[in-house]
This record gives sequence, structure tokens and C-alpha cells, in this order.
Amino acid sequence: MTKKKIRIGIVGYGNIGRGVKTIIANSKDMKLVAIFTRRLDQVEAEIKDIPVFKIEEAFWPSFRDEIDVIILCGGSKEDIPIQGPRFAEHFSTIDSFDTHLDIPAYFKKMNAAAVSHGNVCVISTGWDPGLFSLLRVLEEALLPGSKSYTFWGRGVSQGHSDAARKVAGVLDARSYTIPIEEAIQQVRAGKSPKLSKREMHKRLVYVVMKEGADPEEIRKQIVEMPKYFDEYNTEVVFISQEEMKEKHSAYPHGGFVLISGVTGNGHKEVMEFSLKLERNPEITTCVLVACTRAAYRLKKRGDKGAFTLLDIPIGLLSAHSDEELRKQFM
Amino acid sequence: MTKKKIRIGIVGYGNIGRGVKTIIANSKDMKLVAIFTRRLDQVEAEIKDIPVFKIEEAFWPSFRDEIDVIILCGGSKEDIPIQGPRFAEHFSTIDSFDTHLDIPAYFKKMNAAAVSHGNVCVISTGWDPGLFSLLRVLEEALLPGSKSYTFWGRGVSQGHSDAARKVAGVLDARSYTIPIEEAIQQVRAGKSPKLSKREMHKRLVYVVMKEGADPEEIRKQIVEMPKYFDEYNTEVVFISQEEMKEKHSAYPHGGFVLISGVTGNGHKEVMEFSLKLERNPEITTCVLVACTRAAYRLKKRGDKGAFTLLDIPIGLLSAHSDEELRKQFM
Repeated sequence: MTKKKIRIGIVGYGNIGRGVKTIIANSKDMKLVAIFTRRLDQVEAEIKDIPVFKIEEAFWPSFRDEIDVIILCGGSKEDIPIQGPRFAEHFSTIDSFDTHLDIPAYFKKMNAAAVSHGNVCVISTGWDPGLFSLLRVLEEALLPGSKSYTFWGRGVSQGHSDAARKVAGVLDARSYTIPIEEAIQQVRAGKSPKLSKREMHKRLVYVVMKEGADPEEIRKQIVEMPKYFDEYNTEVVFISQEEMKEKHSAYPHGGFVLISGVTGNGHKEVMEFSLKLERNPEITTCVLVACTRAAYRLKKRGDKGAFTLLDIPIGLLSAHSDEELRKQFM
Repeated sequence: MTKKKIRIGIVGYGNIGRGVKTIIANSKDMKLVAIFTRRLDQVEAEIKDIPVFKIEEAFWPSFRDEIDVIILCGGSKEDIPIQGPRFAEHFSTIDSFDTHLDIPAYFKKMNAAAVSHGNVCVISTGWDPGLFSLLRVLEEALLPGSKSYTFWGRGVSQGHSDAARKVAGVLDARSYTIPIEEAIQQVRAGKSPKLSKREMHKRLVYVVMKEGADPEEIRKQIVEMPKYFDEYNTEVVFISQEEMKEKHSAYPHGGFVLISGVTGNGHKEVMEFSLKLERNPEITTCVLVACTRAAYRLKKRGDKGAFTLLDIPIGLLSAHSDEELRKQFM
């Protein structure tokens, strides 16, 4: 679309930062200018091709002219809520803030900062919130007044796998989210049921034990873990390290957004968007990087403020021009 | 969002016009103001609750102040290419122009008319082009440089059913589009194969014969019909009228947009958006009506020109406000 590359800075260099770096390297229209991190020494030891700075140094005046968009790659709990509004005063930003309940308040803060400093800040983008939010809104717009249901899986939840891995006696763990067939059937039948978390999904955790650990104690610790497992029916299955490696290394994921409603003539309509991925972990990073294009273009055309994926024309995510999209993709 | 209802006019009163009328009647934020048709007497006999006019009468000056958006419900072959640019000089419009190859030229014409008269014209919206175009662009934006494949079905194609129904000796016909499993497997395996129409889909046509007709002659006429069936492997199955009614009245449809590519770290990623519908026919009308909201809002905020679904923030399709969407759907 434009010959000038989008100049990007990364803030936070964990898994997401690493993924973002490789995707930018493979994107012809982008260039990674700098990485900002709290762990300067470690990251400098790891990265040879891109200059690494302390986070505070991002606010040096010179970076304002050298960076078009900052991708915030930290966590939703402690990093993004603090960094977001601060960076929005200096740069257009992209983040994956995913505490659903706090999104309206976070949007307001980001919007105020972005508007008053003329930046475009895309917030809460990725898997869900993000792609799945888009599908929910699309469905409900087409069948207004109907209730949509989001089912996850069958797939690996990284957050839940990490949580199970922290239980004493656990060497490795992989937690699968599995949608419950009876719940899906009820929605498909057009019943708009009230469904609890437990009624929509169950969890299946594969565990490799450390030698001498007590399986019953591990099972109890996992199944009763607040927030992560206690609201679901959870099954724990013990396997060997070899089996874990062989059968559970792919990290597939997916899910579907299902709505059933009645169209004009009283016909029941079931609409289902589903997304299936062979490997989950890198999708968040793909979405973050695609949104970078949109932020850059929106700012260029004079927009400012906070945006979610619901506020962005999807064509702006693409490396292709509008003309190419109309010719090749419509 | 706004208490003022969007005032809509329908041009063309066939199946789509009828569908649009019922959806508007069920949408609290919209009001159908007038129907414009070539078949004044017939439509007046059918419609009692909405004033009916000849198409030419839409250009009476008074309608400019009484109608916010016109939905063009005619055909892509003869109606829309003529009506579109003409109506774009007087109104914001929505249409389902679906001749894929001609979309870029049609966009240019519509954009010129819409820009110079300050209107917002959403073109080529519905199933495909429309929802599926959106999914194609979304996938390719997330895995740039990869090739996406659109598979249709298993579902009823109305155009092909109509074509088969016109063959001499055919009383009723239903044509199913069926994606070919081998092709899907090749794409999922990440091979980016070159696939012909015949290699991607086959067709299965259920036919009720008229008494005394020759099945072999009917089969030949269908299977060899240019454009509709000759480029596919087509199977024709003769059934009774009872079986047709019992088993083939639901018009299910769906399809999926499948992409396989390589993410940053060299991991193969297969991404698949699918859409499944229990009843196909009314979805085009749902999309047309949802786009009406977007056109109305875009014009209100000062935009003008031609738009496709790729150029419209999805949140604008929803009857909910931005705040509600962030709170309830993110």
C-alpha cells in the first residue's frame, strides 16, 4: 500500500514479544525499530539484531519521530493497565488487555489519553477479546435480539496448563477445554438456555507427576483450584513424559460462536461461526501485528482515540490496498 | 443508539425485497417508508401497510427528506448496475451486487456518484460477496502471504436449483453444493494446491420428474448445462414429490474459509472460519439490513462514498451502541 515501512517498537519481551518480533520480521511492510524491556541484560544477551532499551527510555523525545506504533506485549494484570495510558500519551499503541469486565473503564482511560495526544490506540485485541468479540457482534447484528453463545475448544488452554504446572508434585501439565455437547445441542435447538460455566465447558488435565508424588493430592489441588478449575468439572489423567511429548505438543485450539434466532418470516435460524487452529499460541501475536497496520493507517487519515476490533474496518488489517482487496478478495 | 428511526425505502419487491420488509418490521431502530416497484398493481395488491410507488417516483424531491437509506433489492444482472449509480445521486444505498469480476468497476462508479452527492453506498454485501469476503480478508491479514480457500456447503444452492427446475420434464429440483474432502485435506496439509472448480466442489441434484418424462434426457440436460453444472461432477438423483418435501425443505447452507500458512517461528498454522446456517435464503436480507445501520451512521458522521463490508467497522452493523458493545460483547 505504501512504500514507507511501519516502524514498530515492542514493550515487554516475553512469549508475546518474541512472537511479535518474528512476525514483524516476516512482514514486508513493517520494521522493528526497538525493544523496550525491564530485563535489559537478559534481553540484550538474547537479541543481537535489534537495539534493546529500558522501558523508561521509550519516552526519550527522539523515539516519537522514530516509532509509528508501540505494541504492548506485557500482561493484563500488572503491565498493560499502567503502561497503556502512559504510552498513549506518546505513541499509537496496540495491546491485548483481556480482563473482560474492565474493558469499558480501560477504554475510557486510553481514549482520553489517545485523543488528547492525537494517537490511535487499539486495545483488547487477540483471540478473545478480539476475533471472538468480532464474531459475537457480527452474529447479533444479523439476528438482532438473539443471544449468542461462545464455546471454546476442544483445545489447550495455556493459562490453565500453567496453573496446573504450578501444583506441587507436577512435572508437566496440559489442560484441555472441552465444550459440552448437551449445551451445544440446547442452543442449536433454539432454546436460549441459561447456562453456567460448568454446563458449557469441562476441563481435562493431563499430568506428568514428579517421582514419588501423591496422585490423589495432585488431583485434589487441581480440581479444587479457585477460578481456574473449581467452577468446572475437571478430570485429571496421569501420563508419562513420553506420552505428553508425543500426543500433547501441538497446542490446537478453536471454538465457535453460536446464535439461534428467528428471522423475519418466523423461521428459526441457527448461525455458527467457528474458528479452528492447529496451533494456538501465536494467534494473539498475529492479531496484534495485523492491528498495527490498522492503527498506522487510521492515524495517517486523521483519526485518534481508542479503538477495539469492533471499531476498525477489517480491510485496514490487510497488507493489501483497498483496490487489491476488492479485486482479489471480494 | 438513537431514538430517531432509520427511514428506509425498498427498490424492487421480489424475494429479497419481501425478506427485507419483514426484517425491518422486526427492527426497533428502523422504519420502512416506501416500496418502489416496476409491478405497481401486483405489489399494491399484496402490500397494505406500506405505500407503494413506481420506481421513477423515488426521485421526487420530497423523498430525499423522507428516506435515509434505499435498499436495492433487484438482480445483479439487469437491475443493480443501472439503478445503483442513479440512486447514489439521491440517496445512501445498500445493494447485493454479486458479479465478483465486475465489483472493482462497479465500486468506482458508485464511489464517484456517492462522493459527489454526499451519500454512503454499501455495495456487494450479503453472503459472498459479503460475509465470506470478510473472512477471507481477515484470515489473510493474520497469515499474510498465505492463500485462502473458500469451500461451500454442504448446502442448497438456490441458483442451481432454479436452473435445474427449468429443464423440460422437471417438476421440482434441489441442487446441493458439496465440498470435496480430498481438496480440503490438501489445503489442511498446508500444500497450497492449485484446485479447479471441479476439484473443490461437486453437485448433487434431487429431481422430481413430471409423469412420462425421460430420466436420461433430464440427467443429460442438467449435467451438461453450461456455467451451472458442466464444470462440476454432478450427480442426479430422482425422488418422489413426498420425499422432496420431507427431506429437502430446510435449505441449509454454510461453508468455510480455510487458510494454511506458516507463522513466525516456522510453525504451520491452519486457520478455518466456518459459517453454518440452518436456513440460507434469509441471510442475504439480514446482511443488507444490518449494513443499512452502518450506512446511516457513516453518513451521519460525515463520511461519503462507496463502501464494502471490508471498509465498515463491524460495530456499526449492530443495533447496540459502542458502549453497550464494549460492555456486553467484548
